[in-house]
Amino acid sequence: MKIRRLAVIGVGLIGGSLAKALKRVHAVGEVVGCGRSRENLEQALALGVIDRYTTDVAEAVADADMVFVAVPLGAMREVFEAMRGHLAADAVITDGGSAKASVVADARAVFGTVPHNLVPGHPIAGTERNGAAAAFAELYENRRVILTPLPETADEAVERVRSMWQACGAEVTLMSVEHHDEVLAATSHLPHMLAFGLVDALSRMKENDEIFRYAAGGFRDFTRIASSNPVMWRDICLANREALSKMLAAFAEEMSDLADTIARGDGDHLLEVFTRAKQARDRYVDAMDQGSLE
Amino acid sequence: MKIRRLAVIGVGLIGGSLAKALKRVHAVGEVVGCGRSRENLEQALALGVIDRYTTDVAEAVADADMVFVAVPLGAMREVFEAMRGHLAADAVITDGGSAKASVVADARAVFGTVPHNLVPGHPIAGTERNGAAAAFAELYENRRVILTPLPETADEAVERVRSMWQACGAEVTLMSVEHHDEVLAATSHLPHMLAFGLVDALSRMKENDEIFRYAAGGFRDFTRIASSNPVMWRDICLANREALSKMLAAFAEEMSDLADTIARGDGDHLLEVFTRAKQARDRYVDAMDQGSLE
Repeated sequence: MKIRRLAVIGVGLIGGSLAKALKRVHAVGEVVGCGRSRENLEQALALGVIDRYTTDVAEAVADADMVFVAVPLGAMREVFEAMRGHLAADAVITDGGSAKASVVADARAVFGTVPHNLVPGHPIAGTERNGAAAAFAELYENRRVILTPLPETADEAVERVRSMWQACGAEVTLMSVEHHDEVLAATSHLPHMLAFGLVDALSRMKENDEIFRYAAGGFRDFTRIASSNPVMWRDICLANREALSKMLAAFAEEMSDLADTIARGDGDHLLEVFTRAKQARDRYVDAMDQGSLE
Repeated sequence: MKIRRLAVIGVGLIGGSLAKALKRVHAVGEVVGCGRSRENLEQALALGVIDRYTTDVAEAVADADMVFVAVPLGAMREVFEAMRGHLAADAVITDGGSAKASVVADARAVFGTVPHNLVPGHPIAGTERNGAAAAFAELYENRRVILTPLPETADEAVERVRSMWQACGAEVTLMSVEHHDEVLAATSHLPHMLAFGLVDALSRMKENDEIFRYAAGGFRDFTRIASSNPVMWRDICLANREALSKMLAAFAEEMSDLADTIARGDGDHLLEVFTRAKQARDRYVDAMDQGSLE
């Protein structure tokens, strides 16, 4: 089912890559880009990511039958406000936010209820790069997209969003808002906190220049995610504060226990933890490589 | 200065790569390998990593003017015991252990005092692979090697070990045993604890199969070091228990504070932490890429 007009609010890596993926398979008529940076929008236009642009959300969504909101979580509410009253009758709205309860709360705050045609979503994909120039059509190939419809969400809206992502080569899964936020807190938000926290802690040590000098190869991979966008991650933390703060506190407790285990020299327990972790990680990598998780 | 006969006790990635690197630049006459696995030693021989082998440490060190001990930290003491009384008069002994206070303690326990010809060392290099077959001559090129001589260590012994590593293309730095163990606790041992701990925690969650399924790209890099050898890491934890348990406990406290910051929604503080971390990490990567840290 072809999309007549797609409005992409926020033409960065996530929004731009959706547009490029849909264009590549001729699954969209026209793509209208919208954002605050004219420079980025000009670049998106020049690169063929979008067909035209506006910095006005209301104008962008006019007559769009699909609206994709790919802005930082902290900007979600004002985007909803700007589109209220300007959506086409057949419009379906979805988003790319990394936490879902906050998007639902923002929609409820703006629209009074969560609109039947809003399908909260989250493509599990990304790179460290930002902006329209980073967008590429293959970003979502064989990646998972999670949709978290509410009981009041229209089935037809869910199906239209599902078809859109499938056209990009993604595998679509449905789950509840709460479950999404817990799973992502564990697999994405918590690791980011550890990487940011570790690099910050080392950078505050008094011989920090020297310390980084002796970091071995593994350190670079381990801390890669600490180079992520700080504003985006502040927003994710605030948006998923409940699930994330609980999980981080529990993990801190476990690390404190592990410190005790090391201090008292309990080698058997250490070996047990490390072996279980290595097995789980090796299984995960095997499954990734065999494509069964993708 | 050419090494007449190098005894490598433990012909794995670390020991085997030293042998290959020295052979490549003709800095060694003969390499004698020693280990417990005949299969691994046969493979090392077939691959030209070593020139001959024995499973007897005393025999391996006989008439060697350089002895490199590259066994897990937990096996260090028994290797010292096996070589006691069999070393050549001009022998220098060094090792590749990831923690240094424990090696010094092992030497003191076995020899009564720390021998003047023992130079504790640590090449900051490695891959996830093990065994003689994983060894390659370039492993130490542009990598740092830390030597931690004691006041009683003979200068000439330090210079011979320094020359050996420089012949492999490594940059040699001297520091105290205590400082080495603190720096490595921060840059290597702590990150490994976080990666092992995170994967273990996720694997114990009730929907763990599902959780790993939604792990994004960054997760694979972040957890790479959790695929490391559990026995080796148990030994490192036990060997560096004091510095590591203190650092891990302090980090757990910081993560607990960060959980509180998230729970109370203090976005300004989060942005500050993430920005500082991103800047430090980006600086570190720039410096790595420009070679100034290598």
